Amino acid sequence: MLLSDRPALNLQLEKKKYREEQYLDLYQKGEEIPLVNSGLWQVYQGVVQLNRFNQSQGEVVIGWVTPNHVFGSTVNNNSAYCAIAMTDVYVRHYQPKEIIRNPQLARQLLSELSYRLVKSEQMVAITSLRKVEDRLLGLLTMLKGEMGHPVAKGTRLTARFTHQNIADAICTTRVTVTRVFGDLQNKGLLEFDSDRHLIIKF
Amino acid sequence: MLLSDRPALNLQLEKKKYREEQYLDLYQKGEEIPLVNSGLWQVYQGVVQLNRFNQSQGEVVIGWVTPNHVFGSTVNNNSAYCAIAMTDVYVRHYQPKEIIRNPQLARQLLSELSYRLVKSEQMVAITSLRKVEDRLLGLLTMLKGEMGHPVAKGTRLTARFTHQNIADAICTTRVTVTRVFGDLQNKGLLEFDSDRHLIIKF
Repeated sequence: MLLSDRPALNLQLEKKKYREEQYLDLYQKGEEIPLVNSGLWQVYQGVVQLNRFNQSQGEVVIGWVTPNHVFGSTVNNNSAYCAIAMTDVYVRHYQPKEIIRNPQLARQLLSELSYRLVKSEQMVAITSLRKVEDRLLGLLTMLKGEMGHPVAKGTRLTARFTHQNIADAICTTRVTVTRVFGDLQNKGLLEFDSDRHLIIKF
Repeated sequence: MLLSDRPALNLQLEKKKYREEQYLDLYQKGEEIPLVNSGLWQVYQGVVQLNRFNQSQGEVVIGWVTPNHVFGSTVNNNSAYCAIAMTDVYVRHYQPKEIIRNPQLARQLLSELSYRLVKSEQMVAITSLRKVEDRLLGLLTMLKGEMGHPVAKGTRLTARFTHQNIADAICTTRVTVTRVFGDLQNKGLLEFDSDRHLIIKF
């Protein structure tokens, strides 16, 4: 059964069954998901952060992947690329030959890759903005759409972002993110809840 | 027949036949390829530049697509997105239902989308670099791999880039690109040929 055929509400029992059948791998918050093989990974639950290594700067964040969506590549084993569990996550790995054998799976993954490409292109457009304030607002707007859930005060992001996570994604320093977050909080556009999750109010 | 099943060397006669059979659309250098429908476009010949519109900054370049590779989306009609022929180009449009009906096509396009995603993620990593010199070197290295052909003096890019094209892609000004290009030329790392095509010598 394909992951996206599944109902949106996933029961604990089903997860257990999935784990037992070894379809799903669990990674705990902060763990690196080893991308030793090529292929695609589909997120079943949680949020995965994708980083790329740059010689001159170390790791930069290139995106986040939320439930049902995919990451990875069928074309090569991209060694400059690394995936970190931002929360506890369940992921399913599809090998290239498994995808080739199964047309229904290929079509589903085609849609998912297409979605991921749209998101990646959105990230290129955000990181290309000259002003750090514009990049930050662009990023928060994207994250709101990606992993925001309505709460009384606004839209809460399901994963917890540090100022450093945000800085690594929009090519600035942690200090600058802290300053711009402060400005947004003063304007009533942003707030942190008791779990230090962002609540976006615009 | 799928485009990538074709031999690399495309004869003029075949192109004519293809145009007559209305598989391929020709766009002249500088023309916008209208992305009125969703679906994927495969480049048969030439180079396509992809731009995205940002409210605060106008258009930013998000990538380039070279022969056999694809652009577009099966998931939505992305209105913030525009494709410009950087050279005369032939492209083939695949509608989502055409892709769904044809498993072989779906698998081929899955690989191509995967390749395009790798390139897009590479662009995110490049645009995320803090120093403009690093962004420019990263971009030239990527373009060399994408559309470089060996010549006596180094590697020549098949499409002609203006300083503005480059500036729009790496989030800087035309003036800065001109300055950094000057530095690279002085160091013997870069040169323009008589057609003003870049020759990369590193």
